[in-house]
Amino acid sequence: MHHSRLAGFIIDCKDTPPDEGARFWSAALGLLSKGDDGHGYAELDASKRDLRIEVQNVMHESRVHLDIETDNQAAEVARLEKLGATRVANGARWVVMQAPTGQRFCVINARVALAGLPGVTAWP
Amino acid sequence: MHHSRLAGFIIDCKDTPPDEGARFWSAALGLLSKGDDGHGYAELDASKRDLRIEVQNVMHESRVHLDIETDNQAAEVARLEKLGATRVANGARWVVMQAPTGQRFCVINARVALAGLPGVTAWP
Repeated sequence: MHHSRLAGFIIDCKDTPPDEGARFWSAALGLLSKGDDGHGYAELDASKRDLRIEVQNVMHESRVHLDIETDNQAAEVARLEKLGATRVANGARWVVMQAPTGQRFCVINARVALAGLPGVTAWP
Repeated sequence: MHHSRLAGFIIDCKDTPPDEGARFWSAALGLLSKGDDGHGYAELDASKRDLRIEVQNVMHESRVHLDIETDNQAAEVARLEKLGATRVANGARWVVMQAPTGQRFCVINARVALAGLPGVTAWP
């Protein structure tokens, strides 16, 4: 058995330093920015919403992509593949997938124990 | 003074009936689908996450777009314009905007009183 849930989303901003992208999105969403982490990301503090939201500098077109967090990345990727998603790329700690409806999303390792958290599903 | 916060997001699926798009996303996110509402949307029950998530049939490319909810649409649109966003189109109950970082998002009327809810900001 493994667990997964929506972790949050990443706001991908083409050719934009994280602090510059976060300047708009922090003010727009009313969420404080934790600032450029030096790795291309600026996290917005969405802890009151139990979400992980980050602004990312990317080279592809700007978009928003969802993150699914899990305590078993291999099992979760296999589950999503059975649903029709395809694996696009492997990152350091994430797997990039594409939904059958066309959107890219990532499967990431959960940083905390998921069992019992709101919105978590235990998959057989 | 008016209020706003992240309402959730819409999963835009190109040329896809809502129930078909929701079949994947409901299973992927572990959120039950409320089914095709007859207007091009299928809402996923994300009430445990205090989010509004819908799968939508669209004619443009598939993507994910964020929704900001507010108790004063005109004031919120004006605030976001000052931050650098531009108004793209007016819908029945929503205003489509484009962020300076390139993503489309919508400003929608809140269905409940926002003051005091998690993640709400009161803007002067």
